[in-house]
Amino acid sequence: MGRRAFTSRILAGGAAVASLGAVSATAAARPAAAAPAARTAATAPAGGEARHIKMYAEKLADGRMGYGFEKGKATVPGPLIELNEGDTLYIEFENTMDVAASLHVHGMDYEISSDGTAMTHSEVEPGGTRTYTWRTHAPGRREDGTWRAGTAGYWHYHDHVVGTEHGTGGIRAGLYGPVIVRRKGDILPDRTYTIVFNDMTINNVTPGPDLEATVGDRIEFVSITHGEYYHTFHLHGHRWADNRTGLLTGPDDPSQVIDNKIVGPGDSFGFQVLAGEGVGAGAWMYHCHVQSHSDMGMVGHFLVRKADGTIPGYEMHEHSGSGTASGAGSMAHGH
Amino acid sequence: MGRRAFTSRILAGGAAVASLGAVSATAAARPAAAAPAARTAATAPAGGEARHIKMYAEKLADGRMGYGFEKGKATVPGPLIELNEGDTLYIEFENTMDVAASLHVHGMDYEISSDGTAMTHSEVEPGGTRTYTWRTHAPGRREDGTWRAGTAGYWHYHDHVVGTEHGTGGIRAGLYGPVIVRRKGDILPDRTYTIVFNDMTINNVTPGPDLEATVGDRIEFVSITHGEYYHTFHLHGHRWADNRTGLLTGPDDPSQVIDNKIVGPGDSFGFQVLAGEGVGAGAWMYHCHVQSHSDMGMVGHFLVRKADGTIPGYEMHEHSGSGTASGAGSMAHGH
Amino acid sequence: MGRRAFTSRILAGGAAVASLGAVSATAAARPAAAAPAARTAATAPAGGEARHIKMYAEKLADGRMGYGFEKGKATVPGPLIELNEGDTLYIEFENTMDVAASLHVHGMDYEISSDGTAMTHSEVEPGGTRTYTWRTHAPGRREDGTWRAGTAGYWHYHDHVVGTEHGTGGIRAGLYGPVIVRRKGDILPDRTYTIVFNDMTINNVTPGPDLEATVGDRIEFVSITHGEYYHTFHLHGHRWADNRTGLLTGPDDPSQVIDNKIVGPGDSFGFQVLAGEGVGAGAWMYHCHVQSHSDMGMVGHFLVRKADGTIPGYEMHEHSGSGTASGAGSMAHGH
Repeated sequence: MGRRAFTSRILAGGAAVASLGAVSATAAARPAAAAPAARTAATAPAGGEARHIKMYAEKLADGRMGYGFEKGKATVPGPLIELNEGDTLYIEFENTMDVAASLHVHGMDYEISSDGTAMTHSEVEPGGTRTYTWRTHAPGRREDGTWRAGTAGYWHYHDHVVGTEHGTGGIRAGLYGPVIVRRKGDILPDRTYTIVFNDMTINNVTPGPDLEATVGDRIEFVSITHGEYYHTFHLHGHRWADNRTGLLTGPDDPSQVIDNKIVGPGDSFGFQVLAGEGVGAGAWMYHCHVQSHSDMGMVGHFLVRKADGTIPGYEMHEHSGSGTASGAGSMAHGH
Repeated sequence: MGRRAFTSRILAGGAAVASLGAVSATAAARPAAAAPAARTAATAPAGGEARHIKMYAEKLADGRMGYGFEKGKATVPGPLIELNEGDTLYIEFENTMDVAASLHVHGMDYEISSDGTAMTHSEVEPGGTRTYTWRTHAPGRREDGTWRAGTAGYWHYHDHVVGTEHGTGGIRAGLYGPVIVRRKGDILPDRTYTIVFNDMTINNVTPGPDLEATVGDRIEFVSITHGEYYHTFHLHGHRWADNRTGLLTGPDDPSQVIDNKIVGPGDSFGFQVLAGEGVGAGAWMYHCHVQSHSDMGMVGHFLVRKADGTIPGYEMHEHSGSGTASGAGSMAHGH
Repeated sequence: MGRRAFTSRILAGGAAVASLGAVSATAAARPAAAAPAARTAATAPAGGEARHIKMYAEKLADGRMGYGFEKGKATVPGPLIELNEGDTLYIEFENTMDVAASLHVHGMDYEISSDGTAMTHSEVEPGGTRTYTWRTHAPGRREDGTWRAGTAGYWHYHDHVVGTEHGTGGIRAGLYGPVIVRRKGDILPDRTYTIVFNDMTINNVTPGPDLEATVGDRIEFVSITHGEYYHTFHLHGHRWADNRTGLLTGPDDPSQVIDNKIVGPGDSFGFQVLAGEGVGAGAWMYHCHVQSHSDMGMVGHFLVRKADGTIPGYEMHEHSGSGTASGAGSMAHGH
């Protein structure tokens, strides 16, 4: 995989437990990417499964901390957890570090015992284990006639206890990762990349990882922000809708279409693009648009290749040697 | 009321003048909260009334400044002003302080003489009185065929002259408060809490106030930001839609559902949650997610109790003595 | 024009090339503003034209840098470029400065050779010329069944190479300007004003420009942010919808209506108001609501006059002599 930043993931459909490198059951239902324009976009199935996984908090050799699905395989960001509305996820969490740590999640339904905070005594001591339970639900009408929103969204998890009561030290060191909850019928991407603006880094490195694609691939971005500073997420040559999915629902969706968005710690959003749609192949920058932040290295490239693998105007040797690949694992979704 | 932060309010329906402690005429239309899931949610009536109230700007003993509906009863934040689209509010404003002060409001229709700025000579000298008039309107189609938005929204008022031409000193000291304008049919909450991120405080104190609820209560949050810094408003275990009401209008509403939102001075938004829905009772944190801000105390608890009054995993004695209740008054809405 | 800040523009309909001072072909279709409430609002036509313009990057006498449609006529912000979905714009860009410069745009469809970045070798050396091509497209359904958003929006262009690889020096000096892409049927304004929060300035000056209108005029604001800091854009007495056009699409549009919005570098949005609607004439402030920013001069006035030209409560002599008009050119749209 080299410098790629494929995000490892738990798969949306199929097996109750999907580990690093597994192939999605839903992938089989999707034709190969050879004729991306002609196929009908694959969509998420209904949820409702009970799923069980293991997660580990680990110290990495270079001082970072990370989450992983397997011992010794922790990454920064942590692996992608992908659910369908209605699923319940049981996470057997083991803290292999020498300080207490936890798993706090945004957006999920969880009882206070899965809050992952010291105040609620839901953190995990060094060497300890705890099961965190996250539930999700489809939208629907309540008995009182009001509409209840579903869980679908671009969410994230992070430590809430290392360093301070708010996990400031753990987050700074890399204890964070993405969660996607899909609704039945949501369009599935060919690949998902996670971009975390964490203080003045992207995924705890600068410059940020190169994100690989071929023209026509349906690429999903998950943007998460952590730390101390506000940022603005900007992508060249591509844009998205500022709504739940990042995709307009149709001609009546009034949402603004943007290519730049202000974000602050704890925020998350996501979107899909067809790589190079209307613009072609190229080395398309993504970066924080706060001038000093981009100048200090909060920038990476969305490398969109022609079918023959080339990128016009881009010489690889000019840009090699950065050695700053995202720490993420590897899992192709539908590839 | 103790450490509770019930926000005093002018009521949405009923008497032309509603003062602190009055009971809403609409409250009578709402069944008791005993069976919250079975009742039909109460909704706002049409507006169109002329309403008259008094407001006072006062110095508090501890150096803060506050607004109140009665002399000697000023609070920080100031009392909730709640209107229905179509209402007109006449505020006889008295400045009891020794410096000029004013009442500037967001979102309302007011003539320039009610702007509350020095440039427009609409501030009030020490000891002086001025009537500010705020009008509201329902949405509708203009003669030119375009759609005119209504006034409904989560708005706010604040001083615009103490310290500087922009009221920097007055706002810092506590001269701010919430305004809610409801549309006919908007769902009414059981209780409303106002959370103002003002510089590094919540409602001018740290930690922020405890917000009390019982599982199933329909609780409304009004989030306002003031001062110098950006923040991110985060609530554990609950989420809302990033739209006008914070509630999705139904299955076709494309708005993102979030539990974390970046905000800056002058911003305001609001939402309702069913306390503990899908997650149960607990001491659910709300806090600014900027790491240094939460570490410095921009955090409070949404205390969601079981019907028997208990909160699992929460020991009151651990958390007592903060002495930082919100300065708000007391007015139960529908209770 | 004096202190007015009319933004020069390429017109939405009509001639393939419109230069500074030209009159819109669509303007003829709009009745005079004498009876604004009775006329039907004019709307944008379908696009699909190929249009050719020249643009120049120039150093101004006072050290600023600006873009212009004619040599020696550069302004800060640069002139408004206005397109209809489906149009293609060919910009013959000449860099008259003694440092390399470029034209990078948000939101448009452009090949990587029009990216305006050094990495893609699409900048322009001193004295050099380059044609940048921007395409736009209407929304529509893709072959895979998904909905593709159109290009319509409030976008912007800026330098990406002066000073740093991200154009930090060029942007700081004034190399930025607005782009509006309209959809067939979008409501056309009587006049457009561009407000750029660039570091601690508005359009590189403080205080910001006075924006002139008469009650009933349909005024369009384009808000762009650049530089290092976050801001909050606030307008007194008027408000807008937080969606694509700033106008609600109708009663079912769930978007929040706001009068204050947090923004960061690279962000842009726009909206239209009917000047003085429901509030009448007045000197309505617009300003950054971050307290120190407004106190330091990030404020201007939206001067809404009665039909007789007067502004209640506003004495011109109190506010004259600021000498800080926006550097924009002059082009009345429909006037």
